[in-house]
Amino acid sequence: MNIPQSSFPRIIIIGGGFGGIALAKKLCKKEVQVVLIDKNNYHTFQPLLYQVSTGGLEPDSIAYPIRKVLQGYSNFYFRLAEVERIDTNGRMLQTNIGEIQYDYLVVATGSETNFFGNKNIEAMGMAMKSIPQSLNLRSLILENFEQALLTDDLHERDALMNFVIVGGGPTGVELAGALAEIKKGILPKDYPDLDTRRAQINLVQGSDRILPAMSEIASSKAERFLESLGVNVWKDIRVTDYDGVHVSTDTDTSFDCATLVWAAGVQAVRIEGLDAKELLCRGGRLPVNQFHQVDGFKEIFAIGDVAQMETEAFPHGHPMMAQPAMQQGENLGENLVRIVENKPLKPFVYKDKGTMATVGRNKAVVDLPRFKFQGVFAWFVWMFVHLYFLIGFRNRVVVFINWVYNYIRFDREARLIIRPFKKVRAK
Amino acid sequence: MNIPQSSFPRIIIIGGGFGGIALAKKLCKKEVQVVLIDKNNYHTFQPLLYQVSTGGLEPDSIAYPIRKVLQGYSNFYFRLAEVERIDTNGRMLQTNIGEIQYDYLVVATGSETNFFGNKNIEAMGMAMKSIPQSLNLRSLILENFEQALLTDDLHERDALMNFVIVGGGPTGVELAGALAEIKKGILPKDYPDLDTRRAQINLVQGSDRILPAMSEIASSKAERFLESLGVNVWKDIRVTDYDGVHVSTDTDTSFDCATLVWAAGVQAVRIEGLDAKELLCRGGRLPVNQFHQVDGFKEIFAIGDVAQMETEAFPHGHPMMAQPAMQQGENLGENLVRIVENKPLKPFVYKDKGTMATVGRNKAVVDLPRFKFQGVFAWFVWMFVHLYFLIGFRNRVVVFINWVYNYIRFDREARLIIRPFKKVRAK
Repeated sequence: MNIPQSSFPRIIIIGGGFGGIALAKKLCKKEVQVVLIDKNNYHTFQPLLYQVSTGGLEPDSIAYPIRKVLQGYSNFYFRLAEVERIDTNGRMLQTNIGEIQYDYLVVATGSETNFFGNKNIEAMGMAMKSIPQSLNLRSLILENFEQALLTDDLHERDALMNFVIVGGGPTGVELAGALAEIKKGILPKDYPDLDTRRAQINLVQGSDRILPAMSEIASSKAERFLESLGVNVWKDIRVTDYDGVHVSTDTDTSFDCATLVWAAGVQAVRIEGLDAKELLCRGGRLPVNQFHQVDGFKEIFAIGDVAQMETEAFPHGHPMMAQPAMQQGENLGENLVRIVENKPLKPFVYKDKGTMATVGRNKAVVDLPRFKFQGVFAWFVWMFVHLYFLIGFRNRVVVFINWVYNYIRFDREARLIIRPFKKVRAK
Repeated sequence: MNIPQSSFPRIIIIGGGFGGIALAKKLCKKEVQVVLIDKNNYHTFQPLLYQVSTGGLEPDSIAYPIRKVLQGYSNFYFRLAEVERIDTNGRMLQTNIGEIQYDYLVVATGSETNFFGNKNIEAMGMAMKSIPQSLNLRSLILENFEQALLTDDLHERDALMNFVIVGGGPTGVELAGALAEIKKGILPKDYPDLDTRRAQINLVQGSDRILPAMSEIASSKAERFLESLGVNVWKDIRVTDYDGVHVSTDTDTSFDCATLVWAAGVQAVRIEGLDAKELLCRGGRLPVNQFHQVDGFKEIFAIGDVAQMETEAFPHGHPMMAQPAMQQGENLGENLVRIVENKPLKPFVYKDKGTMATVGRNKAVVDLPRFKFQGVFAWFVWMFVHLYFLIGFRNRVVVFINWVYNYIRFDREARLIIRPFKKVRAK
């Protein structure tokens, strides 16, 4: 790994997501050596991935170079690497670029799509948890429309224009809304020789309401917004299989579609050496105490999606979202400094700042702790908050310009098949 | 292909580059059916590819959806396809999505990198003629610096940080200048644990001056600009081989580098059926008369890089650049309408609007027909002209914002390895 020895204790952070970056910032100019490891050289602003998939934003606008975050930090080392195994006894990491010892280890690896063991859906469905995945989805959507032009078989053509989005959480709702807007505003102009009105956008939710983590008013309003955009919302239906065209469910309902997006579950990213069955909670999360220490370890911590801190308010851990990860990163950063300085630790207390989801132009739902609202104002709040949390001044300006342009012009100009996906999948 | 029959004559345009798009615009609302075929669903603004490679711009900002260009045009059909063969006798195209008849055919396929048969350089060197190629180069540059951190072998580390750019035309000069600015402004901050001063940027030119198509004063100024940025300019040297590390030349000079960019030649993109040896000029271009008709055919035309119209001023055809392609597209568009209306044709006359190249901030060279200038003003002219010719209001604004940001901050934030390249090449 080629990291020099230091007289300061070495803290290794695995993962440059919301948690890892918030933590790293707190360790700047402290008496520690920090090694941040990520398999990408950039931080991904995951809440806007669906806009990359739907051609509203460039991928580069929601990514930020990790090295730039760390510029000017002393005793910081970034390594582009994949962690293969943790040797908890030897306090050592094995990676694809060599081994490295740690004094303190922070696991902030986040989460990945959970297909619940369904290999067919994993092979033929699309996930949307990373920038390459989002770009693949963008390519596939556009490739399917190009292909729809070529067939005289009406059933095949419809399937190429149909979408099934599995999972009614924020990702599924936001993607369904964006696709509905594309169907209305862009497809008829881009494909005058195709009857794009026949395109169907289906949002399939396993439980009895979409956005189940939000308030009931938010759920019902979001559903009404989606329906006003022409999205078919299906509830109490579970998708059970998909062969690339036919979607089976646990009811009589079935769909034919060439694009199935799986947004119905996430699981913690596991690392060998820290994945004993008795250790893992539901979804593969690591149980941690209120100081983020993983059960059984004093020197290993976990934050964000990968950590499960069971509290009275959150008996199954905090929601797997940006806010808890950032707050945990900040708290752990302060505590690690306290550990080095031999001061008592401060337990983590989560401040719920609320949740929100957007459906389309002028349509969003916001749940604040004391106040819930929906509609135009909620939509502006959603945009403001997302711009605020986006890292980097340039990214904020470029995203803002794109949004203004898209809003005024009812357009999304990044509908580009930069890397075709169908051939890749066929291999 | 599923293109309906029409009472109007059918014009097929192969290629949505500068020539093809300019031509299509002239055919809007005329009594013709137009089918535009491209292997990408977007137009590429090739002059700025080097900025994508060097992290200064997002790829999406220099690409524009072809369907959006054609929005609202009646009797226009776009097909995402690769042409496999032209059957000139049957007036038919064979493509990967089926066959199609034409009344008039316009070949506007542009050019691709010419490795002059050197398979090693083709396998291990990087080209920069398309957006995926430019993104691959971006990834490789960043991956090499990440790898340079990991080795203790000083020679290997130097090779990972060294660049050889073969070809002193605008592409090579602009890329070398951009890399020199990255070396100076970004690398020391991004890689504090690496002695990035040792990185060498070598521009290798086969003839006795760089920018040989421009004036002598432009060449010598550009060379001085490059040297002030720390670029090593090598003249009268031809690169003969490359194995991924070692670069051989036809002199005693040799280089060790992990990144070799081949910008030393282009050739017309050939299509089977129109590639008889007796037909092709140097570089595989198709000889055309002053009405863009390919020798021996009344109904087949060629414009842009793929066409060679021999005139007194340009005995080997016009320069393979955007300007001639656009002017030819416009002229041919008007002539095709005249053909349909049975009016006499207007021969093509090229208006030389000048050429320019940029080296770095405040450093560019401009040759106008009556006036040549270099330096800060030339640089502003270069930026203005490129913004002006960029298609799309959003693209212009986003590129402008990026340039202002990069200028003020001495930064390039798109230094992201979205799709790693080394593994791809290893396959």
